[in-house]
Formats: sequence, C-alpha cells, structure tokens
Amino acid sequence: MRQVAILGIGQTKIDEHWERSLRDLASDAILAALQDAGRLTCDGLFIGNMLSGMIDQQNNLGALLADWSGLRQVEAVKVEAACASGAAAFRSGLMAVASGEMESALVLGVEKMTDSHPHEVTSALATAADADYEGDQGVSFVGINALIMQRYMFEYGWKHADFAPFSINAHANAMHNPFARLHTRITLEGFEKADMIASPINLLDASPIGDGAAAILLVPADNLKNDSRVVVAASASATDTLAIHDRADALFLKAAHKSAKTAYRQAGLQPEDINFFELHDAFSIMAALSLEACGFAERGQGPRLALDGAIKPDGSLPICTRGGLKARGHPVGATGVYQLVEVVQQLRGECAETQVDNPKIGMAQNIGGSGATILTHILKLTNS
Amino acid sequence: MRQVAILGIGQTKIDEHWERSLRDLASDAILAALQDAGRLTCDGLFIGNMLSGMIDQQNNLGALLADWSGLRQVEAVKVEAACASGAAAFRSGLMAVASGEMESALVLGVEKMTDSHPHEVTSALATAADADYEGDQGVSFVGINALIMQRYMFEYGWKHADFAPFSINAHANAMHNPFARLHTRITLEGFEKADMIASPINLLDASPIGDGAAAILLVPADNLKNDSRVVVAASASATDTLAIHDRADALFLKAAHKSAKTAYRQAGLQPEDINFFELHDAFSIMAALSLEACGFAERGQGPRLALDGAIKPDGSLPICTRGGLKARGHPVGATGVYQLVEVVQQLRGECAETQVDNPKIGMAQNIGGSGATILTHILKLTNS
Repeated sequence: MRQVAILGIGQTKIDEHWERSLRDLASDAILAALQDAGRLTCDGLFIGNMLSGMIDQQNNLGALLADWSGLRQVEAVKVEAACASGAAAFRSGLMAVASGEMESALVLGVEKMTDSHPHEVTSALATAADADYEGDQGVSFVGINALIMQRYMFEYGWKHADFAPFSINAHANAMHNPFARLHTRITLEGFEKADMIASPINLLDASPIGDGAAAILLVPADNLKNDSRVVVAASASATDTLAIHDRADALFLKAAHKSAKTAYRQAGLQPEDINFFELHDAFSIMAALSLEACGFAERGQGPRLALDGAIKPDGSLPICTRGGLKARGHPVGATGVYQLVEVVQQLRGECAETQVDNPKIGMAQNIGGSGATILTHILKLTNS
Repeated sequence: MRQVAILGIGQTKIDEHWERSLRDLASDAILAALQDAGRLTCDGLFIGNMLSGMIDQQNNLGALLADWSGLRQVEAVKVEAACASGAAAFRSGLMAVASGEMESALVLGVEKMTDSHPHEVTSALATAADADYEGDQGVSFVGINALIMQRYMFEYGWKHADFAPFSINAHANAMHNPFARLHTRITLEGFEKADMIASPINLLDASPIGDGAAAILLVPADNLKNDSRVVVAASASATDTLAIHDRADALFLKAAHKSAKTAYRQAGLQPEDINFFELHDAFSIMAALSLEACGFAERGQGPRLALDGAIKPDGSLPICTRGGLKARGHPVGATGVYQLVEVVQQLRGECAETQVDNPKIGMAQNIGGSGATILTHILKLTNS
C-alpha cells in the first residue's frame, strides 16, 4: 500500500443551522476542503453519516451530495458506524487511495439533527445501542453511559467533581475555535450544579448534538511537492459487543485498546510518542476510559490526567484541543471527520491560543455506540 | 493492486421470515459463506444495508453482526447506497483486500423489511429518492419509475405487454432457485391483468420486497491453490443526479453507462464478451434501461432482447438467471450481494435447470435510487 496524505480540510460551524439543509452544510465543507487543497474535483466521495434516513428522510446521500457539490457522476457512498461513522468513512477513503483504485478521495462527515424534536433525536441516537436487548428495555444512549459511569465511580472511588476538568478543558479550548458549537467557559461550581440527565451524568458531562459538516481530501503522499505534509501514519478499527451486558468488563474499552495497539504497531510508535489526542468525549466517562484503553493512564486512573492538568494544551497529553465533543459539539456522523480536521490544524500550527507546542504526531479516536465500534488514526507531519 | 478472488458464498431464502430477526438472517448467511470457504473467521466485515435504522430501529450493524456471528472484535462497518448498498459493500471489501490492508473480507448484504407496515416500508424506500424535491411532492419510489416507463413507452412506441418477457423469464428462472422469494410461473395474460400500482407499472412489473441475507468471502487470488477460481475482473461505481428532473435525459442511465464502460476497460472486455448479466430489474423498465446503457441494445430497444428470447438461460445474453429482483426478490440492501452470489453460482456451474452453458464471464449491476448510484462488477472464472 502507498502512503496517503491529507491535502485539504474544510468544516462548517457546528450549530442549529435553521437556514441550511443537510445538503447545504455538506457542500460548504466539501468546497472548503477542495479549495484548501487547490483542487476542483476528486475521484470518490466517502460520506460518514448516521441519521439522515431517520431524521431527514434521506438515504442515498452519496449521489445526492456528489451532485449538489458539483461532483456529478463521481463515485460516492455513505458509511455508517453510529457515532464512529466519520472515522469509518475516512478509513474507507484511505483504503481507496492507498490501494491505487483512486488518486483522490474526499471524505465528508455530515449530520443535520436539530430540525427534529429532541425526543425523536434521542430515539434515533438509541439505535447506536442494541435495539432488542438495550433499546427495548427503555434505556436511552445516555442512560447506558450513566450505568458505566456509576460503576466506574463505585469501582475506583472517584467523585463526580473529579470529572470536571475534562469538561472545563473542552469548554476553555472551544472558546478559541470559531467552528465550535459552544463558546461558554464553565467552572467546577457550574459543573456540579448542572441539570441532571441520567445520574451521574449531568448536562456538563454530556456533549451537545448539532448540525455540521467537515471534509478532508486524501491524495497519495508521493505526489506532493510540499516540504512539510500531513500523512496518515496509522488507521485501525475494531469492534466489541454492541450491548454492554455482554462484556466481561464494561469498564474497559476493548475495541479502543485493540485499535490503538494496531495503530501504534503500524506507525512504529508508543503512547508516549503521541503529542496530542483528539478523543471521543461524548460523555466525560468516555474520555477517561479512552485514555486508559490507549495506554495513557492505568486502569481507573483516567481522571488523574485531567486533575493534574496534563490534558490542557500546554500539558503532557493535550486532548480536545479544539473543544472536543463536549464543546466543539457532536453532530454524530460528522464528529470523526471534525476530529481529524482538528489534528491537521494542530500539525499545521493553525490553532492560535490552543496550539500545542510544535507537534509532529497527533492521534484521533472515534467511538460508535458505548464502545462498540472504535477507530484510531495517527497523523504525522513529515518532511518530504 | 492485487487480484481478489471469491472463496465462499452463502445466502438465506428471501421470504417473510417471521421467526428470524435481522441478526439471525445475517449470521445464517455469514456462517454459510465461511463454511463454503472452509474458513473460521475473517479480517473485516462489510455490511450492505439500507433500512435497518428506519425499520428495525438498529444502526451500528457492524459491531452487532460481528458479535452475533462469532466474529467479536473484528473490524466491521455498514455501507449504504440505497438499493445499491450490497454492491457498494462488496466494493469496499474488495478495496480492503486489494490494498493489502486485509487478507480476507466478508461482505454481507442484509435487510429485514416485512416486520413493518407496508406504508412504512413505502415511506422508507422513498428515502432513496430526493427527499426535498421528489419525496416532498408525494411521489413514491414506484411512482418515479412509473414516470420513466410512461415516457419510455411514449418515446419508443412500446406497449405494456412488450415488457412481459422480462417478468416471465424472471419468474420461470426463480422456479429453480430454492432461495427465491416467489415460486410461481406467470403468463402474458396474467402479466396484463395484474393489479395496477402506478400506471403503467403493475404488480408484475415490480419486484417484491422481502427479508434476506447473502454473504461473500473475499481473499487475495494468489493465495488460492485451486485449479479454477472466481476472481473479480472489474469493479466500478458512478452516480447521477438523485432527482430525475435534474437529468437532461431521464431515459438513459448515465451512471450505468459510466460504471459499465469503466468495468469493461478494467477487464479488457467488450459487451459481447459477457456470458450472462445479473441486472437490477426492480421494475421491468429498469431492465430495459440497464441493457441499453451497458451496450447490449440500442437506445429504446431493450425490450427487443426480451421479446426475442435472448435473455433466457439458453439465449445470447441470459439475465436474471436465478429469478432477478422480480422473482428472487428484492431485500433492498442485500440485493447487490445476492446478484454477485448468483454470478458465482453460474460460474461454478451450480445452477441446474437455469445453468448457462459453460460461462466464464458474468456481470452484475446494482442500482440505488432511480439510476442515481450504480455499481457494475465483472467476475471471471480463471485457471491458475
């Protein structure tokens, strides 16, 4: 396989876009990525999206968005892996270029969620869990994560306030990201007083949904003349049981561990070589579990990294440097592409106030379901 | 890219499976394909499915079906391109193996449609069309195809009865396919008297939905020791506008033409080299348009091939040899994989009464939407 580079990125602000439809948001991001790359078209379009059928009564996004973006007749397809749809689409586009089947692939993540009633969105999001054995019991997606967090606090003795630094860091970083959904600083006091959703998860443990689209143009690395370029150093995906009751240990993200281990091996790296990590903090508990499964913290010690400040932009392992799911927002099927766009922004040195110091290697991890489908990607700045 | 071979196939009967859920049907097909291949597992699972979110309230099928089929932790993802989801999943699995990223990929097509009220299914199928510019006008998916057929009959002077041989051939062939949905012969008289759905499309122009799953195991061709093996000689995909009013000519399947032309070039073949063709006869008009776009008939002359008997198993271009969508059935996201399984059955000489005489090259074409997303695959029997 040949090495693949990221030539262009684009994104829309994540928001309640009352005036922009799914196709508008998608084409905004696609055209921005093409413009950033200095290209007019591409050989294939790979779309990460979870809910367009249920919420927008629109399937067959491939043909629709190729046409709407001026890429008529270009091969196009949608990839779905619940909240990991974005990274899964990226991995599909990556294989298309790496295989030599295409000379360029445009990866798009898009989701339009806020046109529907929140109850409908909650039902739609529950389809990421096991419909027969979880959904039919009436447990929502946040409810499942609440069960995990409750058990984690019990097993390891953490208080709810110990998770606050995850959310505080995410909100602080999002203040400097114009594309972020939320531009509000939060405090420990505010974190503890936030409205409860499903105990112990309150409003400030949980990421907001939103409308948004992000896009990336992939090309073979050896075609690029630039002195410095961002290449894909590793791409790995793994699954676990969809229902959490089927797992021997609900507090360990096996699929995160497996995909991260594979990614480290592909890139010839160790966890300590990673300069920053865009992780999947859909809920604060998921940030802790992700850090542990990927080898950045011992079992049960994820919150320690946050409490020690290691996760801040100037810490030893910055996370959620553009706001994370918590504050940048979580337009579910688009999130994985936003994460990768943000890794590129850091490697290019475009992050101003939350810029990590001279990073060469960034990692992104995207989670679909309560740890069921997990993809890990490592991007690297290289000099050709 | 390395050449890829099909090592195993599996399928369930297409039916109203009241006793089998989506996950049961999927694992039946997966295990059958693994058994056929003499393998116990695979490196990746690629799932073609259109409607599980809307009809079964289940997304994240990748993790669910990997686990349910005994492939826990294996990388898995869903691919969606409306009724072309099956072939799109096949193409994703193909690129994964061709690129060297995987040593084996299991491609699954699955759909469970008959648990829902037919009105819900009709609404769900309409998401294959343009929701804003077609669906919102109240036109159903069959309604769009009826507009195309009406115009075609007007332009080229065909009568409705001229399309009968397509459906009669499909039903006759399905009589000998134990996996087919319908085992009923039909006549010209019956064809003309069938209940009208959306004029001029009646019940015997239209394919039946159903529940079913089909699976294929892909491996690198050079690993196989067999004397004869089925390899993928070509794989191509293209799109057209999703809404038919956006097309300069609604009677020509541009995406079929483009993907077939690309496939012929990849395989170094011409239309006359194709021994049989599993095409996408969701409606009889689509069979005619597909034959024309792929170079088997002049514009407006598709029905002539059917009237002349060329499409029968002993004709010059057999189509729908196992019943086609019309009689084998159309479990939408699974159909593309059924077609490819059937091509393999023909090349292996396993089709008994509808066996084509000593075929070496078979083609399959899968259509998503009213010609919006079209994939063409050519499989070939080779001696290593």
